Amino acid sequence: MSQRFSHRLLLTLLFLTPLGLSAQEAKDPISESGFVKEFGTMWTFDAPPLAYWKAAYDFTPDQAWLDHVRLSAVRIPGCSASVVSDQGLVMTNHHCARSCITAVSTDEVNYQATGFVAARQEDEPRCAGMTADQLQSMEDVTAKVRQAVTARGTEERVAQRDAAIQQIQDECAAATGLICQVVTFYQGGMYSLYRYKRFQDLRLVMAPEEEISFFGGDPDNFTYPRYDLDVTFLRIYDNGRPLLAEHFLRWNAQGAKEGDAVFVVGNPGSTGRMLTLAQMEYLRDVQYPNQLAQIAALIRAYRSLAEQSPAAARQYENNIFSLENAQKAIRGYWSGLTNPEIMARKQAFEGEFRRRVNGQPDLRSRYARAWDAIAAAQRQFAAGDAESRYQSFGGSTLLGLAGNLALLPAQAALPDDRRLPAFRGEGIDRVRAQLLRDRPFDTEQEVALLAAQLGLLQENLPATDPVVRAALQGQAPDAAARRLVEGTRVNTLAMRKELLDGGSAAVTASDDPFIVLARVIAPLATRHGMRQAQLNTTISANAELMGQAIFAAYGTALPPDATFTLRISDGVVKGFPMNGTIAPYRTSFYGLFGRNAEFDDQPPFHLPDRWKMALGRLDLTTPVDFVSTADIIGGNSGSPLVNRQGEVVGVAFDGNIEMLPNRFIFTDEVSRTVSVHTAAITEALKKVYGAERIAAELERAAIR
Amino acid sequence: MSQRFSHRLLLTLLFLTPLGLSAQEAKDPISESGFVKEFGTMWTFDAPPLAYWKAAYDFTPDQAWLDHVRLSAVRIPGCSASVVSDQGLVMTNHHCARSCITAVSTDEVNYQATGFVAARQEDEPRCAGMTADQLQSMEDVTAKVRQAVTARGTEERVAQRDAAIQQIQDECAAATGLICQVVTFYQGGMYSLYRYKRFQDLRLVMAPEEEISFFGGDPDNFTYPRYDLDVTFLRIYDNGRPLLAEHFLRWNAQGAKEGDAVFVVGNPGSTGRMLTLAQMEYLRDVQYPNQLAQIAALIRAYRSLAEQSPAAARQYENNIFSLENAQKAIRGYWSGLTNPEIMARKQAFEGEFRRRVNGQPDLRSRYARAWDAIAAAQRQFAAGDAESRYQSFGGSTLLGLAGNLALLPAQAALPDDRRLPAFRGEGIDRVRAQLLRDRPFDTEQEVALLAAQLGLLQENLPATDPVVRAALQGQAPDAAARRLVEGTRVNTLAMRKELLDGGSAAVTASDDPFIVLARVIAPLATRHGMRQAQLNTTISANAELMGQAIFAAYGTALPPDATFTLRISDGVVKGFPMNGTIAPYRTSFYGLFGRNAEFDDQPPFHLPDRWKMALGRLDLTTPVDFVSTADIIGGNSGSPLVNRQGEVVGVAFDGNIEMLPNRFIFTDEVSRTVSVHTAAITEALKKVYGAERIAAELERAAIR
Repeated sequence: MSQRFSHRLLLTLLFLTPLGLSAQEAKDPISESGFVKEFGTMWTFDAPPLAYWKAAYDFTPDQAWLDHVRLSAVRIPGCSASVVSDQGLVMTNHHCARSCITAVSTDEVNYQATGFVAARQEDEPRCAGMTADQLQSMEDVTAKVRQAVTARGTEERVAQRDAAIQQIQDECAAATGLICQVVTFYQGGMYSLYRYKRFQDLRLVMAPEEEISFFGGDPDNFTYPRYDLDVTFLRIYDNGRPLLAEHFLRWNAQGAKEGDAVFVVGNPGSTGRMLTLAQMEYLRDVQYPNQLAQIAALIRAYRSLAEQSPAAARQYENNIFSLENAQKAIRGYWSGLTNPEIMARKQAFEGEFRRRVNGQPDLRSRYARAWDAIAAAQRQFAAGDAESRYQSFGGSTLLGLAGNLALLPAQAALPDDRRLPAFRGEGIDRVRAQLLRDRPFDTEQEVALLAAQLGLLQENLPATDPVVRAALQGQAPDAAARRLVEGTRVNTLAMRKELLDGGSAAVTASDDPFIVLARVIAPLATRHGMRQAQLNTTISANAELMGQAIFAAYGTALPPDATFTLRISDGVVKGFPMNGTIAPYRTSFYGLFGRNAEFDDQPPFHLPDRWKMALGRLDLTTPVDFVSTADIIGGNSGSPLVNRQGEVVGVAFDGNIEMLPNRFIFTDEVSRTVSVHTAAITEALKKVYGAERIAAELERAAIR
Repeated sequence: MSQRFSHRLLLTLLFLTPLGLSAQEAKDPISESGFVKEFGTMWTFDAPPLAYWKAAYDFTPDQAWLDHVRLSAVRIPGCSASVVSDQGLVMTNHHCARSCITAVSTDEVNYQATGFVAARQEDEPRCAGMTADQLQSMEDVTAKVRQAVTARGTEERVAQRDAAIQQIQDECAAATGLICQVVTFYQGGMYSLYRYKRFQDLRLVMAPEEEISFFGGDPDNFTYPRYDLDVTFLRIYDNGRPLLAEHFLRWNAQGAKEGDAVFVVGNPGSTGRMLTLAQMEYLRDVQYPNQLAQIAALIRAYRSLAEQSPAAARQYENNIFSLENAQKAIRGYWSGLTNPEIMARKQAFEGEFRRRVNGQPDLRSRYARAWDAIAAAQRQFAAGDAESRYQSFGGSTLLGLAGNLALLPAQAALPDDRRLPAFRGEGIDRVRAQLLRDRPFDTEQEVALLAAQLGLLQENLPATDPVVRAALQGQAPDAAARRLVEGTRVNTLAMRKELLDGGSAAVTASDDPFIVLARVIAPLATRHGMRQAQLNTTISANAELMGQAIFAAYGTALPPDATFTLRISDGVVKGFPMNGTIAPYRTSFYGLFGRNAEFDDQPPFHLPDRWKMALGRLDLTTPVDFVSTADIIGGNSGSPLVNRQGEVVGVAFDGNIEMLPNRFIFTDEVSRTVSVHTAAITEALKKVYGAERIAAELERAAIR
């Protein structure tokens, strides 16, 4: 089974860039409230945007409402979730509970395939390793952290800061017994101490079949209209008994309808909305086009492998799907960055912000140089891109092993802080362990992937390049790859041990074709790696200044970039223009059975038998999934959608493909959060899964 | 009810441009057969591409197959159709029979709303004015036409050619009693005499409700997935009795399935695939952007009118829909021309073709200058675009009337061939009749539309422009428009009569604000009009050379541009990548009821009661619409889709939005023909309309 790319945190982009108010927006009551649309709506609970909510929705929640939804939300590994009954029932996405569903499966029954319903409470099996964190409180500790940083040198300052953060966390944990985490907002503009109560006994209550939770599979992933029942119920146990939850979201089985305001309470993982224009241009012009070229080459390689037989087709299907999903995602991000309108907005904001900083002498002296410093570093990255990308050990497992064998003796001889990042600290032990792990290699796959890499090498570097010469030796990429792979012994553990034990002398003496090539690449790759590490340090340091500047200029009026901590995002349930027509605000079971029929019941549009048998009982007009303008990203999977009354009306599980550019600049014309509708869940529990016990528990919770 | 833009012939583009074979294509057996994909597959019946069909589908129809499908097809006004029973039953689109359905409606019953089913043959009402033309034969008359053209001057040559064509047509009609038309292919590269048998007694047999035939309305127009039962049955009567048809398509109630080869037999109206690169660049850079700006201004004007009251909203709804559809269409065409990949292909083909012409001395001397002559004329068009577009009487009915009043005396005094094109021949009488037609004017609408036009004028011409000065007199467009409209009497028949009768003197003496403005515009507009007429003559003459050149270089291996004459296009039933996922090859009744539910049963997604009542009887998995890679354009509406066995498997009614760029360069990666599936028609006839008589007639036809 391939993984769902939308929910992984692909990039950790922690740099900041601020946006200003344009004259036109300033006339608007929503903008007057300090709201800047392009930053999105991932609000922290200690800075709820009350004036903006009042202007946008005529909605002014009191502190009790905010506390209630915060304490009803829980964070689970990699995902979000919510408590939905006084018996500790927890709702999240099916794809967030996958490891649990797999773990509780037996040799006889695979609950991913069959679904799972615990008939009685005592039949709810434990999910090993699953935890749920409930955010108890937040405290601004910026001053404490800052006070501890007194040194002048960058590295010492970083060490002081990290020590101060560790101390705050340790003291908090000792005093409260809670999980304590200092969260860095605005890349150092603000530090907050987040205290969580952690529940460690979660059990599986109900999970639908993967076929219905991920209906439409990889093709429909990231898209809308969707028909997925991507939901799973867990239960928090406390001292071996269901948690008597003080805070839980009441179940609204009617769910959301078009035009309703909704609030998503969850943990968005990572956004890059505060990147500078220079950083976005680098992604647009250098990084993403090159990544797309590499992915395309890999897809071609796997396709050619898959074409060799039906067995090969099955074997490589998941690699191809996974790469295609990566391609979909990066193309989506890239489409935002290549949209002149979006980039013009970004440019306008950056101009306004720079004027603001330059207009105040104290800000100017501290921050004004940061943009140019980042831009200069990005230019250096761009200038050396082809060399550092291809004078490397990437793209082939065997070449990677040969590279580590060649690098290790020299790296081990250096002091830690002069090594390549991958060889620092415990890294060097990981490298050794990887070299000593015995594993089989598929020759054809190795040849195909190396040939793809050599093809890119040939395209991107001149024929006179030393790596091009050493790798190709005048041959075409295919032939060169075959020569290397078939001529090497790096694929044997014996050979790798021999070289490891023999150290530098053994590497120098080796005539293994991969080691010979690695000796050519090693000094070049080392130089590139050290240079990149230095540029990254420059960018990080200046991005931290940038974050401080934005916080100084705008405060919490702009929500910080996502940090996989609890946020509340707002939006409206709303269809959108799509491909010349209108995508409806919600789908239906009719639509589900339609898409199933239209693909002739074939995977990934196949429906489980239980659904076919339930057909006559279902109200086919029931909403299945629905869309809203709320602002989410990977990590938000499983977040509840809450209405004004604090009731749950849905569970978020994906964004539409039009949402991908939101990673950098938020827009809501066509980007949408996709959620499972509570009406679908209620209908399915009762009429498909015979899970009356759970439906009744939700209904009791609704009227409490 | 708004009209369906996709089926009107928006543009008559009769210029030619040829495409060459790239080296890569030449390796492909399909390309070796002479097929050049970018020209599409609108084949004439006298040059069926047998080698290409053999290579593409392993299909080699014999002459009997070709004759059979040709003689089973009929052309009806503006559309295509086919005979589908031995009793002269004719199938076409509902939207092609609209005038008939409206005409046979009564004061009590509107069959557009209710649908119509003739219970017995004697209940089939006559469709006044409806004809059906059956193509009997084609004859190449190029030599005859060419022989008649002996003069040297362009205008004399045109007159000789037209006279020769008229003579051929007249002689044919006298000899055969058939409808005879000489069709100009390749813009004069080839002339063919088409002989049709015309049937003049067509009657209405069965029409569904407009709500189901145009389900999804304007939003879904041009798009896919679709759920339209866009079909109507007529019957040809001969001597007052149903035609005993010798040729008819057998009904295949299973219809098409994914991967099937299908052939569309119908009358595509107009394509511009043989335009030169310079002509396409003019459309891309000048004409379409300006048309889009004008449409956007009109939409804004109608929206502001519509906002004034619910009654106004209803009144202007159709204007807005119609403009939005025009916008959708032009944006679609434009998207092809602004696609660098598509344009690069075009450029490559033009280069190859020019080399081919330059490589043969006889071709070179006759044709090599034509490209540059066209490009020069297009440059002149582009240079004068803003002036000729806005120093004009366009955009306002009242300004148009004032313009004709101001122009008429001078135009009438000139010899015919020195007049503006609109005033030549019978044109001048039409202008007079239009001025003398009594009609009401809506002041607010006139103000809004004129203000939109004046806004564009102000944006596109300098403030010192004489028309800008005379029209705006320093006011904003809104105020100027109100001053003009409220101050004029051109809206009264009395005033227009007075000015017509008074001639030049009355026009000169008038102080009516519109007439004063028209006196400023008239000499400028006259100059632009004469200049444009001259440029058009240059382009036409050179485009004719271009057509001769392509025919000389490639022959009938490239299908000619569409001419609203019978063609056979081929394709495969096939889904396509859409918005990140896959559009299925066909839709279903499940999907229909889904889209109905998802828009809460609201128009244009409302379903007729008859459909709701039939729900329990319908097999909801039945295919409704399906897509194929066949090549169609406006005029193909109602064309049958025929399988290898010559059976009918569907009726074409639209293209998807991705098909719009095909007007200029054919591609089939995502562009698709959308057709009603015969299974849906059979199911609906039996289970929704109780039209067992017709279903049985089709079934009898299937087994004959």
